[in-house]
Amino acid sequence: MKLYDGGRAPNPRRARIFLAEKGLNISLVPVDMAALGHRSQEIQSLNPLQRLPVLELDDGTAITESVAICRYFEELHPEPPLFGEGALGKTLVEMWNRRVELHFLGPVAAAFRHTHPAMVEWEVPQIPEWGEANRPKAAAFMNVLDDQLAKSTFIAGNQFSIADITLLVSVDFLKPAKIAMPEELTHLRRWHEAVSNRPSAKA
Amino acid sequence: MKLYDGGRAPNPRRARIFLAEKGLNISLVPVDMAALGHRSQEIQSLNPLQRLPVLELDDGTAITESVAICRYFEELHPEPPLFGEGALGKTLVEMWNRRVELHFLGPVAAAFRHTHPAMVEWEVPQIPEWGEANRPKAAAFMNVLDDQLAKSTFIAGNQFSIADITLLVSVDFLKPAKIAMPEELTHLRRWHEAVSNRPSAKA
Repeated sequence: MKLYDGGRAPNPRRARIFLAEKGLNISLVPVDMAALGHRSQEIQSLNPLQRLPVLELDDGTAITESVAICRYFEELHPEPPLFGEGALGKTLVEMWNRRVELHFLGPVAAAFRHTHPAMVEWEVPQIPEWGEANRPKAAAFMNVLDDQLAKSTFIAGNQFSIADITLLVSVDFLKPAKIAMPEELTHLRRWHEAVSNRPSAKA
Repeated sequence: MKLYDGGRAPNPRRARIFLAEKGLNISLVPVDMAALGHRSQEIQSLNPLQRLPVLELDDGTAITESVAICRYFEELHPEPPLFGEGALGKTLVEMWNRRVELHFLGPVAAAFRHTHPAMVEWEVPQIPEWGEANRPKAAAFMNVLDDQLAKSTFIAGNQFSIADITLLVSVDFLKPAKIAMPEELTHLRRWHEAVSNRPSAKA
């Protein structure tokens, strides 16, 4: 199998960090997203949505959506568990992974894609007013994150999970999206420093 | 346990259809979203994001995000499996559920919330240009759905799954969002008729 990778963008990075946490080495096929390589015929034939990453299995099956790719590896290599353990543990990871994606990564990405001059060919039509409207949404959600991290080591409880990976790529995307993390969010800052120091963060 | 329900909106309906497919009866607490009941102190204390549905367990634990609520019931009551079977089956359900959510339900909901006059208090700021930009995105994705449904009975393969539930609530949301389903998408229409005829669709 091989993983079509997309470099620094949040979703390709999410899959790479997950693989690093699992201790797995998968062949990576680099795709230059800055040169719009994700819109090539090759990627289009694997994923009509022209998004990365894509995992191609040996029989040609193409798996898209970074969380689906991660779930495939969780099923094949259950240790360490990154989607939670037990009915409630799995549910809380699903809940926090989705909360972070829908209410934080989404707004941060929208702010970036709809206001950054380099994104004008990616996001058609680019609507700066929509990009700006997402900055306060992302900022408001950081308070929810800080409240949760006041109570637990990681975002979905006391075990590291895919929800922390989603949160890490989102927090690291604040800078290109020109959104500040307030100084007073000490729990979120403590978490960010700890998770950034894991070896997987360099993946 | 009890499920704080939100009536006709897509996400509350998604959880109710899932429970009906599982044959489960859970106490529902109706919340009048038209009267902004989801912004009440009661819901805010359960879900700081003020979204429905919310599942409250007997110990007071609040579970939000409709897919997380569904996953909890899948773990407690595995039959019939609605999140797929086997590593690849579970992965393909995850992939299609997310594709439908992110590339179809999201755009359909954005078109509705950013253009409908009744949504002006819900979606602040309401940006009609963003709503309009989502109509062609939703329309384009219907071709991807039709291509997939030309090859398989249900959206993630030959077994009914949560991805079909997500797709049903999305397709039924096209009308309020004023997006037409093209006549020529015969596979999507065949699927919609079949899934609408399941008893769970009335939930």
